[in-house]
Amino acid sequence: MDKIKNTLERIKPVSPDLLQQAQLLLDNKTKPLGSLGRLEEFACRIVGIRGSRQPDISKRVIFTFAADHGVVEEGVSLFPKEVTAQMVFNFLAGGAGINVLARHAGAEVRVVDVGVDYDFADTAGLIRKKVARGTRNFAKGPAMTREEMQAALFVGIELADKCHAEGVGLVGTGEMGIGNTTPSSAIIAAISGKKVSEVTHRGTGIGDAALLNKVRVIELGLAVNNPDPKDPLDVLSKVGGFEIAAIAGLVLGCAANSIPVVIDGFISTAGALIASELHPNVRDYIFAAHQSVEIGHSFMLERIGVEPILDLKLRLGEGTGAALAMTLIDAGVKLLKEMATFEQAGVSQG
Amino acid sequence: MDKIKNTLERIKPVSPDLLQQAQLLLDNKTKPLGSLGRLEEFACRIVGIRGSRQPDISKRVIFTFAADHGVVEEGVSLFPKEVTAQMVFNFLAGGAGINVLARHAGAEVRVVDVGVDYDFADTAGLIRKKVARGTRNFAKGPAMTREEMQAALFVGIELADKCHAEGVGLVGTGEMGIGNTTPSSAIIAAISGKKVSEVTHRGTGIGDAALLNKVRVIELGLAVNNPDPKDPLDVLSKVGGFEIAAIAGLVLGCAANSIPVVIDGFISTAGALIASELHPNVRDYIFAAHQSVEIGHSFMLERIGVEPILDLKLRLGEGTGAALAMTLIDAGVKLLKEMATFEQAGVSQG
Repeated sequence: MDKIKNTLERIKPVSPDLLQQAQLLLDNKTKPLGSLGRLEEFACRIVGIRGSRQPDISKRVIFTFAADHGVVEEGVSLFPKEVTAQMVFNFLAGGAGINVLARHAGAEVRVVDVGVDYDFADTAGLIRKKVARGTRNFAKGPAMTREEMQAALFVGIELADKCHAEGVGLVGTGEMGIGNTTPSSAIIAAISGKKVSEVTHRGTGIGDAALLNKVRVIELGLAVNNPDPKDPLDVLSKVGGFEIAAIAGLVLGCAANSIPVVIDGFISTAGALIASELHPNVRDYIFAAHQSVEIGHSFMLERIGVEPILDLKLRLGEGTGAALAMTLIDAGVKLLKEMATFEQAGVSQG
Repeated sequence: MDKIKNTLERIKPVSPDLLQQAQLLLDNKTKPLGSLGRLEEFACRIVGIRGSRQPDISKRVIFTFAADHGVVEEGVSLFPKEVTAQMVFNFLAGGAGINVLARHAGAEVRVVDVGVDYDFADTAGLIRKKVARGTRNFAKGPAMTREEMQAALFVGIELADKCHAEGVGLVGTGEMGIGNTTPSSAIIAAISGKKVSEVTHRGTGIGDAALLNKVRVIELGLAVNNPDPKDPLDVLSKVGGFEIAAIAGLVLGCAANSIPVVIDGFISTAGALIASELHPNVRDYIFAAHQSVEIGHSFMLERIGVEPILDLKLRLGEGTGAALAMTLIDAGVKLLKEMATFEQAGVSQG
């Protein structure tokens, strides 16, 4: 646990002075005060987080963590478990949604096997950090041991530390794991105390009967494991997943390294929620990419205290929403750096 | 009026067959059905509008139309009228918000003087199509004669025709005109019959007293001119503006030339509303960039029948929202073109 404690101790609040300095810079640009709305907020927050009035976010990385879920044997997903590994190959070949959108956003995709039920021994381009070949079925007992959960969390922290060493200015989260809306719903239900049916939705597109079953499976998992809502790591290990733990670690690591982190949709936000429950200042480093179609997502975002950037009815995951949001954050930073002031342009102020 | 009639006759509905073909292509990509939400809608609509399953929208142009408004003498704006011309110089120098965001979106900005109260005779890079040095004060009589309004409308139509000839695949609208939220509110009030106070807001940031005055001025203008809500061009000429007329023409011209047109915020939408009232199929060609902070904007979008893409609390105009929305439309088209199918990637379908 020392590594977690040590990481949490490195997380500082973002300087309000820098936020204010950035707003002053924007207020002198040739536009009515505040008229660039949330783009101004993005620019200010990036200045505050990076500690520079000319922040460089040209080097961007999206991590797509892949893992399998024992709970899939309860029939919670439309797709067979094999798809997790198949999609990893698709990521590595550059043909998935996240590949297209990361290229669009000028970001590099790094695919991490943190718990896929497949042996990728000889696969080039894959970051191999497998903790186990998938979680156990949480309807019958804990998904992970405390040690397994920590190992996955450390993967995320170490990848963030590496980004810091490389000068990465903006990180995005993503995931692939057939069945992983189920642990995500379980996490928000456990932490918020909300009814499972209020935070559980159709994932990749299951029908009414399968949705009822999914709710029942999560209720069973919570009853069997009795996770302690005051101990986020207990919740994570009992009803979470390896990719969710890795995302929680990545978010913690980004906060500790002063790297802004764009969280994707429902599953990524479950990971970010765990991180945010562990330290109140984590939220200062988080950009919420979009409002997912999954009904439990709003509760998570509210609990963390962040507002989504986009609402495009996305529900793919992989980091696709994070890639799109990166382009808007980038736009905000460019406005700060490139717009003329009233004085430079000889424009009268209101 | 023949030119307008002729343009309207060229506007055809978008082929439902092509929309369906594009959706089928997307349904075979490696993702759950419909999981890319509105990005799929964007891709399908671009296919339908351009009439190609591999549409090329690499050549993009944003038109920023500048004009002045006689009604500014009633104290409806926070900024002096001189700022319109000053901002034109800022656009030409590349220092304004639209310049930064158009570069970000890979779009060219074309600045058009359609009615600025300043003599730009020797200014390089400016498209000079001035109809008059600003409108007349509509609180005292019609803003434009029918002929002036038509001249500005034709400017927009001709620019769209030129885009077609150049192979432009995506057009955006933008504007600059101190005071121009006032005619925009007047237009939606006249067309919808809604109370002026329901559709009038703070523009560049006026206070409570100035807002009350702005409402009173618009009410006066509607009473004095009595525009006919069933004759959109009567509304446009009596309480509109030169840039709004040019935008209406541009939108009509884009629809006639099968070019998708991204409309920016409140003022651009007022122009698009006039175009949409003139022909029911115009809406097929419109992408609404964002939800403006201006309270009258939702009514306009509803009336046209389009849903905004972004909600970033923008209220700058110039085409800034259109530039951002272009990047998301581009993302949708790239997904259609670049994502692997289930078969290509060897991924099992659900």
